[in-house]
Amino acid sequence: MNVEIKELDIVLGVRNILISEEDAKILGIQPGFRLLVSKKNFKKIFFASISSKIVKKGEAIASPGTGLKKGDLVDISNAPPLKSINAIKKKIYGEKLTSDEIKDIITDIVNENLSNIELSSYVTAIQTLDLDDDEITGTIESMVSTGESIKFDYEVYDVHSIGGVPGNKYALITVPILAAAGLRVPKTSSRAISSAAGTADVMEVLARVDLSMEEIKRVVDSVGATLVWGGALNLAPADDKIIRIEQPLGLDPQAQVISSVLAKKKATGIDTLLIDIPMGDEAKVKTGFEARKLAERFIRIGERIGINVSCAITYGGQPIGRAVGPALEAQEALRALEGKQTSNSLIVKSLELASILLEESGLSEKGKGKDLARSILASGKAREKLLEIISAQGGKGIEKSDDIELGKFVEEIRANTDGYISYISNKAIIEMARLLGAPFSKKAGIWVSKKIGDKVERNESIFILYSESKDRLENALRLSRKIRLYGIEGMVLESIHGQVYRTIKGERK
Amino acid sequence: MNVEIKELDIVLGVRNILISEEDAKILGIQPGFRLLVSKKNFKKIFFASISSKIVKKGEAIASPGTGLKKGDLVDISNAPPLKSINAIKKKIYGEKLTSDEIKDIITDIVNENLSNIELSSYVTAIQTLDLDDDEITGTIESMVSTGESIKFDYEVYDVHSIGGVPGNKYALITVPILAAAGLRVPKTSSRAISSAAGTADVMEVLARVDLSMEEIKRVVDSVGATLVWGGALNLAPADDKIIRIEQPLGLDPQAQVISSVLAKKKATGIDTLLIDIPMGDEAKVKTGFEARKLAERFIRIGERIGINVSCAITYGGQPIGRAVGPALEAQEALRALEGKQTSNSLIVKSLELASILLEESGLSEKGKGKDLARSILASGKAREKLLEIISAQGGKGIEKSDDIELGKFVEEIRANTDGYISYISNKAIIEMARLLGAPFSKKAGIWVSKKIGDKVERNESIFILYSESKDRLENALRLSRKIRLYGIEGMVLESIHGQVYRTIKGERK
Repeated sequence: MNVEIKELDIVLGVRNILISEEDAKILGIQPGFRLLVSKKNFKKIFFASISSKIVKKGEAIASPGTGLKKGDLVDISNAPPLKSINAIKKKIYGEKLTSDEIKDIITDIVNENLSNIELSSYVTAIQTLDLDDDEITGTIESMVSTGESIKFDYEVYDVHSIGGVPGNKYALITVPILAAAGLRVPKTSSRAISSAAGTADVMEVLARVDLSMEEIKRVVDSVGATLVWGGALNLAPADDKIIRIEQPLGLDPQAQVISSVLAKKKATGIDTLLIDIPMGDEAKVKTGFEARKLAERFIRIGERIGINVSCAITYGGQPIGRAVGPALEAQEALRALEGKQTSNSLIVKSLELASILLEESGLSEKGKGKDLARSILASGKAREKLLEIISAQGGKGIEKSDDIELGKFVEEIRANTDGYISYISNKAIIEMARLLGAPFSKKAGIWVSKKIGDKVERNESIFILYSESKDRLENALRLSRKIRLYGIEGMVLESIHGQVYRTIKGERK
Repeated sequence: MNVEIKELDIVLGVRNILISEEDAKILGIQPGFRLLVSKKNFKKIFFASISSKIVKKGEAIASPGTGLKKGDLVDISNAPPLKSINAIKKKIYGEKLTSDEIKDIITDIVNENLSNIELSSYVTAIQTLDLDDDEITGTIESMVSTGESIKFDYEVYDVHSIGGVPGNKYALITVPILAAAGLRVPKTSSRAISSAAGTADVMEVLARVDLSMEEIKRVVDSVGATLVWGGALNLAPADDKIIRIEQPLGLDPQAQVISSVLAKKKATGIDTLLIDIPMGDEAKVKTGFEARKLAERFIRIGERIGINVSCAITYGGQPIGRAVGPALEAQEALRALEGKQTSNSLIVKSLELASILLEESGLSEKGKGKDLARSILASGKAREKLLEIISAQGGKGIEKSDDIELGKFVEEIRANTDGYISYISNKAIIEMARLLGAPFSKKAGIWVSKKIGDKVERNESIFILYSESKDRLENALRLSRKIRLYGIEGMVLESIHGQVYRTIKGERK
């Protein structure tokens, strides 16, 4: 059937087309059904919206950005059934998917042919039923092949955290140390999925993170490293669409974590990769057993796709450092690089992760990596390197930690008794920080004044909350009265020194 | 923050509110975030849409039917976190839900506070992880308490199929037999979920099915039975919203089937219920073991909520009767009641189901129910009773099977060889019928000319396809070339006589 595009209306979803009830009847369709819309050199699946109040028979409305223009005469027909729908059902019913079926799903995700309902169902099935090694490998290969890839002429290194612990801004310290030592580190990272700030959200406080492939190559060629947002590239476009679906419920299936990380690293041409696996009661991984299993899975699948993976199991029992939220975290990382008084846990973790890759690359002897990393940090070279990276990525004029602005609505949460901090809830901190506006509002976040083992007196400040919205600050305060954010006991219960518990290495092929 | 409702726009989803980027920034929100919108005597959660092209700061657009009017001054703020979101996450992570948590979820489903992404995730988790008896009982109780209920002053009976086999129009024969025998049967049924026609879709060809509570009471009082659509009532409103999410992928989790059926039967005050469990390779239940387990689960949960449940495990290995699709099925049921030549399997099944309730109610001695049912059918009293029900429900002027119109675009599928039909695919028939337009297009469907065991010659017609859309008919024909609709072998492989394999009875309390 032929219809004319009468209007473009941004309120319609980007893959919706609004047609009249009469035309819907002729096509035999209901709202949400898939329509194939075609004109010369154009063929795309849309979801039907139906209303006779707004369009007449023979007319349609679509969104701008769909490739349709006002006045276009297009042919609309019932879309043929999607193979991916059967594959999703197969997965939900507990069967193993072939690599062709996975390819169908990933391709339809990339082409936005699946509705939110269908995609959410697939992601939930992955969460509840998992994917096996073959399915994950298939997912990675499909994700890489449906996106673009970078190729470097030299060996490149990367370090990546699976997340789950708030305040994990180590990359802004570790990556400059590695680059200052001479390694090439084209680091791409994600924005927060279920957390308060991803590395990309933090770096965006200081510089552009939406670099193109060419810009990344140029930056790595000139200063040795980047700290950019992978989502701005077309690296593994399916992954970003899956992440969008994971966000509302804060889902993060392990199989998807592995697929997501390794697909993006494969697409950026990474040869040697260190994975940070934070472990703790409220981290993604709770026990040493789980952490080792996950590490082995990363290494095994890394081998299958040609990446030399090592994993560091790190302490994730409370926030890393003291800052949670994009601007606060950028500020804390800069303070660490400037040699100012800051959280020891952040520095130790950043150095230990750097040391693993310094040793892995041969730049340092075994056992000497941490000394090398520490000397680079102490010399100020890591700070210089971060400023070079910032400048190469189109810096926002921030040169030092004091330049960073924080949310203008501020409240403190104070200790309800004397004692030692025995517990800080990662989950509550993340939930609070998100309520305050993080990660979308850069200046929102939480400063953790007291950490586990610290002595506090009644009424002493434990957390400082920052927000750009009074409304959100009040919501967060209301929540803080209902949840258990921290615990105080009569004596020091735990004191954390080392930050990396164990390194699990893939064999160099 | 206060904003003025500038326009009502039907293109916006019914729970969306469109605000400006400036206001979104002040609130610290992204598209899809929940906003609490309030004015005098009005407080509802909406999902944010954001665009500065269409509304200015201080303005908003909502949909008609939301309770908002043009010119309204409303207060919008960030909605407090929903407890149901944490409950859904808990389920997804494999934990058991308390009845309070289930109540939170069901209440937010009824109030439409959950997005498609969130609801789809919950439904998929039920599909992949199941609910236990406590969770199902909690779901039923919450579904009933968040809806309305009918109470009859006399004992009422019902029969309900879990579905999964095409052409299952027995209710249009069984219910009139029961009512003609003197039982009160306020039957509510659903529209098709993943099938080609639900009982409500079929009955709608003949009469109104969207009766109110009062109308149902009046019809049962006067003619003894109804055949109406449960979704038109506010019986278990959560269920209909869950069904909407199940439809795109054709999901139908067993726990949800039990909750859905028993919640609606509880809300219609049913005392004694017969559940039809079709069993077959392509039915919902594939083996006798599974069927008995499901039957026991129905009976167990029936006891907990005070319904006397029996289950009949029936043959579901091919379509019931020959007609699939609303108009075709209504026509076949009328033919059976008129005593015209029709499919024996449909008549046998309808009589056997009727006989179980005739015996259960004491209207017939044990072992004599089928004779009683058969005599009522043969006497024409069942036909008269259906015509009474049709008339009491606002009949559409159809008095006999020949009055029913079918789709005007017709094509046949013919045998590719000589032999006996050894296999007919339920799933393929359903998929084809849906492609043809069923259940939304009443006149679309498939006539199964040859059934398992029937002899065919090459080029003889096996299926007749009906559609109201040429486009859809062509799509279905294209599909028929790609899938296995039927099989033909050199000899009779199977010949089905009895339609009820086994009855499993709850103990009368």
